[in-house]
Formats: sequence, structure tokens, C-alpha cells
Amino acid sequence: MELIEDIKTMQKISRVKARENKSIGFVPTMGYLHQGHLQLVEKAVEENEIVVVSIFVNPTQFGPEEDYDEYPRDLERDLDLLRERNVDYVFYPAVEEVFPEGYATYVQVEKGTDVLCGRSRPNHFRGVTTIVTKLFNMVKPHRAYFGQKDGQQLLIIRRITADLNMDIEVVAGPTVREEGGLAMSSRNKYLSSEEREAALVINRTLRKASKWIEDGERDGWEIKKKMEKEIKNEPLATLDYASVVSRENLQELGEIKGPIMIAIAAYIGSTRLIDNVWLEVD
Amino acid sequence: MELIEDIKTMQKISRVKARENKSIGFVPTMGYLHQGHLQLVEKAVEENEIVVVSIFVNPTQFGPEEDYDEYPRDLERDLDLLRERNVDYVFYPAVEEVFPEGYATYVQVEKGTDVLCGRSRPNHFRGVTTIVTKLFNMVKPHRAYFGQKDGQQLLIIRRITADLNMDIEVVAGPTVREEGGLAMSSRNKYLSSEEREAALVINRTLRKASKWIEDGERDGWEIKKKMEKEIKNEPLATLDYASVVSRENLQELGEIKGPIMIAIAAYIGSTRLIDNVWLEVD
Repeated sequence: MELIEDIKTMQKISRVKARENKSIGFVPTMGYLHQGHLQLVEKAVEENEIVVVSIFVNPTQFGPEEDYDEYPRDLERDLDLLRERNVDYVFYPAVEEVFPEGYATYVQVEKGTDVLCGRSRPNHFRGVTTIVTKLFNMVKPHRAYFGQKDGQQLLIIRRITADLNMDIEVVAGPTVREEGGLAMSSRNKYLSSEEREAALVINRTLRKASKWIEDGERDGWEIKKKMEKEIKNEPLATLDYASVVSRENLQELGEIKGPIMIAIAAYIGSTRLIDNVWLEVD
Repeated sequence: MELIEDIKTMQKISRVKARENKSIGFVPTMGYLHQGHLQLVEKAVEENEIVVVSIFVNPTQFGPEEDYDEYPRDLERDLDLLRERNVDYVFYPAVEEVFPEGYATYVQVEKGTDVLCGRSRPNHFRGVTTIVTKLFNMVKPHRAYFGQKDGQQLLIIRRITADLNMDIEVVAGPTVREEGGLAMSSRNKYLSSEEREAALVINRTLRKASKWIEDGERDGWEIKKKMEKEIKNEPLATLDYASVVSRENLQELGEIKGPIMIAIAAYIGSTRLIDNVWLEVD
């Protein structure tokens, strides 16, 4: 396994591998890897001849009041985990090289980015779509792997790859959960044991909502109201949103139908957590 | 020479050529080719093993009141001109495939796009940077060729390729001029013979401004004022702007120094024409 810090070196490696007709699988991460990341990595290793994992905590997707500085980092541990899984290259560029002085270009999706997480995190998805476009140009993968846990992000990345004609297959990996159903996230590290218990309300509520829909409920506003009530009943939780949206355009649904995502974001103590479930509804 | 209309086919050809280690030169155009385009094409043929020329009149870079519908088109003539120059592929995608329903992603440069042409054409550069990013992902060139006549566009495209880490060399070709100095442009077709005569004022004024600077003038506002006066003295001309800007950030200069661009845009009758000169000033 090789650690690459220089952007031009990464591009050169990818150019050479493409010329050798080797498929490149790419897993972009912000590091502090958990089972969710590692399952994506294992899938990438299975499906490609060369695997690149990037570790880059992207400042442009954090708001000014958010946890960019405190975001957990542990490069040595991450490298060990990736070496064990036979990753070929870990790409670890410096912030100053990725966003040099005078930087001015942004990739922006103008639909579906001002709802759900985009409402409470105004420039978040602009930061995500910009760094993903940049990383794709640095790594030039054939396939790129993203977790379903960040469901809105996954749908928005599918949108930019289609819209900008990127010749890259976006592969989704299922959300990996701790016992009790809590979605794995690097931010779970912030939780006290009491908060960890309280955080289970998020996934429990999503499972209840799925059940209500399975049982025949088709009124999106009704489901939303009942989910909100569940979250508000948990004293350590503060609701950000609970929504039933179309996976096609991320708009909230009055009548539940088609490919949908049920999504919740809530603060548990001061930690913001998200989770979602995807359903196909007749 | 092969005419390619399908995006996926274009990508596949480029993938195969890259694998064969062939360099791809790309000249994006809106068609209705003139000597300015053709010199870029000849340069691309000289410098690359494979040359792709795209012809696509991009709706997203025209304002609602602009000449998208009337923009001159002549595919057969263009194809003949390109065949004579040994172009390998002409890429001619349909608007509906390039911007399908639900299209939502834009590439935007947040500095230097609201000045000069960006002031009177508010979404113009957003349209240009978006289509260029898309075309680059479709054609995957090693080198891309742009004319210096669209000076601000050239500088903005250099900015997005650097900012988004596109692994592409942007090559500039000099402005080609008709007798008398009028910069070649597909829009010159709109001019009556009287207007064509009047249009010479643009380049004549740029040459005068260069001379003033060569003679020692370093006051940008003074040069601007004198250029404005020259344009206003031509009865058929209506000034849009006359500016002396830094090529680094496209901001107007009080003190002229470093790599500069002197740029003019003016309506001659109802046709908007632009031209510019680049200087290095000690």
C-alpha cells in the first residue's frame, strides 16, 4: 500500500493504470474509518483491480459553526485498517494544495440541495459536490463508492455525475449499524453512553415509519407528524427534520408513492446525527 | 473523419484512444467556423495524435434576450472545413441529450465572472464553465484549444481547470483578424457593410490604448476614459465596456502593472462585439 500526498502524482498513477486497462475503484472518506467505510472498501477491492481510498476532511462542506476543527482524525489507525484490506493507494492530500489561495470554482446542484440536510447546512452540499468533482478528477476512477447512510449526499452525487457526464459508476453501500440500530458514523465518537442509548430513537422511528407505510399508510404528512412526535418524546434529542421524500427530486411527498427515502436528522446532545431508509412504494 | 452524435460513443472512443496512449486534442466550438477556429484546429492537429472538434450551440450561455435562436449555423460547410484539415472526430451532440429534463448542476467561478462581459451577460460564464466541464468529461482531452479573442472566457476556463484539478492542458490561440483589424467572430455575419466599417473602431481603440501604455501611461482610469471617448465618437457604436484589467483576477487596474488585458465590448448596430489585447507591463 502506498500513501500519496501529491495531486499530480495521484493523477499520474491513475493515468498509467488506465493505460494498462486496469479498473480503478475509489472510496472517498474523511477518515476516522468505521465499519461503514470498511465495507465500501471491501466491495471496491472485490470489484476493481486497483483501489484508491482518499482521506480528506473537507473544510468547504462544514459551516462556520460546525465541527471542522474537532472532526476526529487518526491517520495511523486508518492506514492499518486499509493495509489489512489490501488497498493499493491511500490518497491524503493537504488542504493547502486542494484549496490554494485564490480558489474560486464551485459545483452546485440547484435542485434538492436546499431541503433536508441542506436546509440547516446551507453550503454543505456545494462543498460536497465541489470536493467530489475535484477528487474524481484527481483519482479518475471507473467506480466510486458511497454509503447509503448519507442518503441525500448519495442522490446528489448521482445527480452531478449524470449532469456533468462524468464517466464514473457511482456504487452505493448499505448503512452499517451498531447493535440496537444506530447508524455507524465517525461522529458517534462524540456521544456519551447515555446519549448513545438516546440516539437509538432515530433508527427506531425510521423502522416504525417503514412499518406504517407497509401497513398501508400513504399520507406523507401524517407519517412526518408521527415521526416528529417520536423524536420529541426523547428528552436528549432535538429534531432537525423528519421527512418522507421522493428519491427522484428529494421533495417531500404528500402522497407516498414510487422510490422514496424516509430521512431523519436530530441532535443528540450537541451531536448532529442522520439516518434514512429507502423503500419502493406501489 | 467521423461524425459522433452520441455522448456515450464519444466517451468510449476517448477511453480506447487513451488506452492506446494516443494524445487527444480538443477544440470546442459553436460552429459556423471562421479562420480563428480553423487556426486552433490546425494547431491541435499539429500537436496531437487524435483531434476532436465539437460543434454545439450552448443554450445555457445565452441570455433570454440574446441571439441563441438566430446564432448562425452551417453544419455541412463546417464539416467540409474540418475534413480538409484532417480532423478525426466531429462531436455534434443534441441539446436534449446534453441538457435533459431535470438538469440541475452548474459549475460556477465566483471571482471575475461578474465583471466585463459577465456584467451585461449575468449567467453567461456559468453557462460556459458548465458546458466546458461537461464537454471535457465527454471528450477527455489531453489538450483543449481556445481563442484569445474571448479573453475573459479563456482566463475563466484556465481557472476552472486549475481549481477543479482537470488533468487537461488549456492552449490559447491568437485572435485572427480581418483586414483592418476586426477580430474574426461568427457574429460578424450580422454586420452590414457600413457597420463592418464602423466596427473597426474597437480594434483601433485597443491599439491606441496599447500605444499609450507603451509611451508610458500607467493610469488605468485615464486609459479607460480615453478609450470610452474613442468608442463614443463612432456614431454606429454603443459602448458596453472599455477596461484595463489584471489577467490574474480580472479586476480593473488603477495602476497598470503586470500581466494585463485591455478589453472592449460594444454594440455595432444591434450586434455585440468584443476584442482584447494582452500586455506585460513592467
